Amino acid sequence: MRLILFVCCSIILTVNLQAADRSKEMIQAIPVNTNVDQAKVELGKKLFFEPRLSKSGFLSCNSCHNLSTGGADNLPSSIGHKWQLGPINSPTVLNAKFNLAQFWDGRAKDLKEQAGGPIANPGEMASTHELAIKVLQSIPEYVSSFKAVYGADVIDIEQITDAIATFEETLVTPNSKFDKWLQGDDNAISSQEKIGYDLFKSKGCIACHNGVGVGGGSYQKFGVVKPYPDTKTLGRYGVTKQEQDKYFFKVPLLRNIELTSPYFHDASTWDLAEAVNIMAEYQLGVKLSVEENQNIVAFLKTLTGEQPSITYPILPPSTKNTPKPDRN
Amino acid sequence: MRLILFVCCSIILTVNLQAADRSKEMIQAIPVNTNVDQAKVELGKKLFFEPRLSKSGFLSCNSCHNLSTGGADNLPSSIGHKWQLGPINSPTVLNAKFNLAQFWDGRAKDLKEQAGGPIANPGEMASTHELAIKVLQSIPEYVSSFKAVYGADVIDIEQITDAIATFEETLVTPNSKFDKWLQGDDNAISSQEKIGYDLFKSKGCIACHNGVGVGGGSYQKFGVVKPYPDTKTLGRYGVTKQEQDKYFFKVPLLRNIELTSPYFHDASTWDLAEAVNIMAEYQLGVKLSVEENQNIVAFLKTLTGEQPSITYPILPPSTKNTPKPDRN
Repeated sequence: MRLILFVCCSIILTVNLQAADRSKEMIQAIPVNTNVDQAKVELGKKLFFEPRLSKSGFLSCNSCHNLSTGGADNLPSSIGHKWQLGPINSPTVLNAKFNLAQFWDGRAKDLKEQAGGPIANPGEMASTHELAIKVLQSIPEYVSSFKAVYGADVIDIEQITDAIATFEETLVTPNSKFDKWLQGDDNAISSQEKIGYDLFKSKGCIACHNGVGVGGGSYQKFGVVKPYPDTKTLGRYGVTKQEQDKYFFKVPLLRNIELTSPYFHDASTWDLAEAVNIMAEYQLGVKLSVEENQNIVAFLKTLTGEQPSITYPILPPSTKNTPKPDRN
Repeated sequence: MRLILFVCCSIILTVNLQAADRSKEMIQAIPVNTNVDQAKVELGKKLFFEPRLSKSGFLSCNSCHNLSTGGADNLPSSIGHKWQLGPINSPTVLNAKFNLAQFWDGRAKDLKEQAGGPIANPGEMASTHELAIKVLQSIPEYVSSFKAVYGADVIDIEQITDAIATFEETLVTPNSKFDKWLQGDDNAISSQEKIGYDLFKSKGCIACHNGVGVGGGSYQKFGVVKPYPDTKTLGRYGVTKQEQDKYFFKVPLLRNIELTSPYFHDASTWDLAEAVNIMAEYQLGVKLSVEENQNIVAFLKTLTGEQPSITYPILPPSTKNTPKPDRN
């Protein structure tokens, strides 16, 4: 009797340990950083929603990285100044801090460097850094906020992009069903979702889509085992000019992927199931059964986390000295 | 000694009574209505920020009635589908429930009727009511929200515009300095602001700009004492086809006026002081001194109230059945 009891206890102990120990998984739960400079985040939030950073006074960071819709615009490519259509699908700003670099081709080393790009891109916000500074410097509330945060009377582009990046670093989506499972809650995902995750690993998706972001950690060729139809977009080659970097792109994050159709740099599909099949075909050289596909899609939907709760900012009014918006 | 004391008490009593009694003023404080259907307001908020109500999937009600910037876009006229420039300055949505009708020419009798206009206007959101319904009906979360609020399985334009209008009715800006003064707080406005208010009354501005909205209660000719230069925009005539309604416009609200430059239907000035002088010249036939102008402007700035605190909505994702956005 004594022996039997001992065996039972031992089994229970083993099961509990297995359930808790997911630290070796190649995907990690999103950590929550509560140690933020709140004044800088608030300033950055205003700037993120600030249409006067664009030439027209109409477009803001949020226009293309809409925090209502998964941090992207859910368009094939973004709409810029005078309705110019961008060359590439807009990546989500959510969890973007987990990318090894920013933009599809990684041409910005971090969020701060990224933030300066669209403001001055003639096809996007179409302003200049000089004009953006002039606008903000003309508004007393901004001058005092920048002074409080950066201690200087003169606003510069380093401060602007630093504040925006600091806000963007708060845009993480923790507590997804999958993260809860990673943290030990066995019931957080269904058996179908678990099968999907096992397939995601065994088929090889996880080789690139791993880490906290479930992607974002490397550049990979689109068309590993079979040439991908889009040959116009050269990807990483545009940055390095190395022949071997043609068609290489930063692996996109799969966090909140169900919220951010259409998919891929060229937005070639709106359907997550089709996107999974395209990946299998061009990257892994495998054909998934309908059931396998459904299970992987079910898993991917467990990656949707808590969306950032944002109090919509109230922006200070322009003054007589504020450069006027130019819609042309 | 007894008599003197009596006199003193009597004076104090009189002063207190005078301070409290501002119920006869022609402007009234913004009432706060806490009796709202929260589920309907939440649904309406989502729809207000919903870019998929536009053909392009890029423009929402908030694009032109931006709640970050006084409920307007602060452009001469709004930017619509394919960057079309609208014919008239976008009025603020803040406190719009206090208007006798909507649009500059009053062609919509209320907020509900107004809300359907821009969705289907080819120069604005460029969708159709049919397409907007199809989009929402394809998204299960919307179907269940509409069902919860309206009790029907089928979404229609009446429900859509009713929900948007219900949200818009919550967009009021109470507790401005001037409202606090109206409610009896003598120190809520400065002596300059009080002089400005007295001028606002004695010069005659208040004849049209009165009521809760400090405007919005009548149609008036722009150019009462002198023809106004813009003769292209016919105003109320477009609705009534009555010759006497040419150049008549709904009197705009002066609430939060410092937040919503440029001014007038034709955005002819960005400067509030100049706007006041134009009004004096064309509507009242008077020339204000620099000091009078400054005092009136100081008063107008006391009309800025508490801006609505909005938690930015998270919108449900599209499905395979959702009509795709069309940027062309």
